[in-house]
Amino acid sequence: MSSKIPVLEIFGPTIQGEGMVAGQKTMFVRTGGCDYRCAWCDSAFTWDGSQKATPMTADDIMAKLEQTGGGRFSHVTISGGNPALHVGIAELIERFQEKGIASAVETQGSFWQDWLLNVDDVTISPKPPSSEMTTDWSRLDTFMMRLSARRDGNHNLKIVIFDEEDLVYAKQVHGRYPDVPLYLQVGNDDLDNQDPARLRDHLLEKYEWLVDRVMADPELNRVRVLPQIHALLWGNKQGV
Amino acid sequence: MSSKIPVLEIFGPTIQGEGMVAGQKTMFVRTGGCDYRCAWCDSAFTWDGSQKATPMTADDIMAKLEQTGGGRFSHVTISGGNPALHVGIAELIERFQEKGIASAVETQGSFWQDWLLNVDDVTISPKPPSSEMTTDWSRLDTFMMRLSARRDGNHNLKIVIFDEEDLVYAKQVHGRYPDVPLYLQVGNDDLDNQDPARLRDHLLEKYEWLVDRVMADPELNRVRVLPQIHALLWGNKQGV
Ligand code: SF4
Ligand code: SF4
Repeated sequence: MSSKIPVLEIFGPTIQGEGMVAGQKTMFVRTGGCDYRCAWCDSAFTWDGSQKATPMTADDIMAKLEQTGGGRFSHVTISGGNPALHVGIAELIERFQEKGIASAVETQGSFWQDWLLNVDDVTISPKPPSSEMTTDWSRLDTFMMRLSARRDGNHNLKIVIFDEEDLVYAKQVHGRYPDVPLYLQVGNDDLDNQDPARLRDHLLEKYEWLVDRVMADPELNRVRVLPQIHALLWGNKQGV
Repeated sequence: MSSKIPVLEIFGPTIQGEGMVAGQKTMFVRTGGCDYRCAWCDSAFTWDGSQKATPMTADDIMAKLEQTGGGRFSHVTISGGNPALHVGIAELIERFQEKGIASAVETQGSFWQDWLLNVDDVTISPKPPSSEMTTDWSRLDTFMMRLSARRDGNHNLKIVIFDEEDLVYAKQVHGRYPDVPLYLQVGNDDLDNQDPARLRDHLLEKYEWLVDRVMADPELNRVRVLPQIHALLWGNKQGV
């Protein structure tokens, strides 16, 4: 019997707003549950009980993706919460491969799943001090090592930066895994702002701060700094 | 004797605002001269006589890069104008390779240079109908074929979109070179706007239009749509 996956939302096609495949047309599957409790989590509804997840099989999810996206997608992003909590995603990735659909997953690197080996683009997003979480470095080392061993696919690190302390953490991560492309992005510290234009100005100001800091730092020459495209376009709206 | 390169500006480090290495910390070298005269060229000062280029050797350029960027870069973008007009860039790319500096070049694909084989990231940006230029498809075919033959490095297509006709052109290009990643971005049709906040709102509105069009189109499933990060941050200012 296949293991069900708790799903909170399935939507798209929309663009991937962050990281290594920023701008890519993609569908989103958002899973419920997280082993972290980041202070600034922008998807707290995946774990705080405010929204109820629906247990779905891989086939249920495929059907819903096709119904929602029609023929208008060839890429699916699985996000959370922490999708790596769910063993059932293995079957979903198999479905994608059968259909020639490219896949991307984002996870903080605290749990391993063998199905990660079959995902095209894996983003590992360790959480900096401002999250109030503590990185288990030996777990992360093992995670990164297993991922590096695969033959196909890309992986990259992404760190959300709120303050100077987070930047120090980012350099520590970069120094530890120097060959893995590192993306930095500013954190959205204004999750309650319902005025997209003001949120946009605020986030662009913070983005400019982060760009300035990275430009000035010889330790961050190979880093890429991206804005959060979704927040620029749609503010804090869910499901776009 | 080494062949000199006409240079209009050398600046950075700043972020790459467009395309496949968007967000990457990079220095810019902008060369003078273009074989095109795009109606909406945002770098017309490289060819309209309004600014004077300085003839520089590869060593001159390296010295200036190091003086300007200090130790704060490991990536250089050569843009124009059309950098592929200049045979002397071969030597500059050699210098980069000696020093472990990664390189990126953007060109419309109308002229070939063998040094393109040694550039890490080549962006080919054919010009759509709104530019009032006509694509010489057989030249572009040859250019793409030569580029595909190289062993290392990435290349991608980037098309600036102003209107529906440009989108039709983008699909034609995508159909012709289906295996080359295609990036679309909205054109900046407001080059005289000196108010960065208003320009930003205008460009994000246009970006949202392009995102909507791409999301709706099954022929554009594998395309990536990016905003122009520089214009969002700094408006129409030159040299940032
Ligand atoms: S790891 Fe991600 S989903 Fe989990 S609490 Fe942190 S930000 Fe939220
Ligand atoms: S090819 Fe580029 S530099 Fe040349 S005219 Fe067109 S936009 Fe300007």
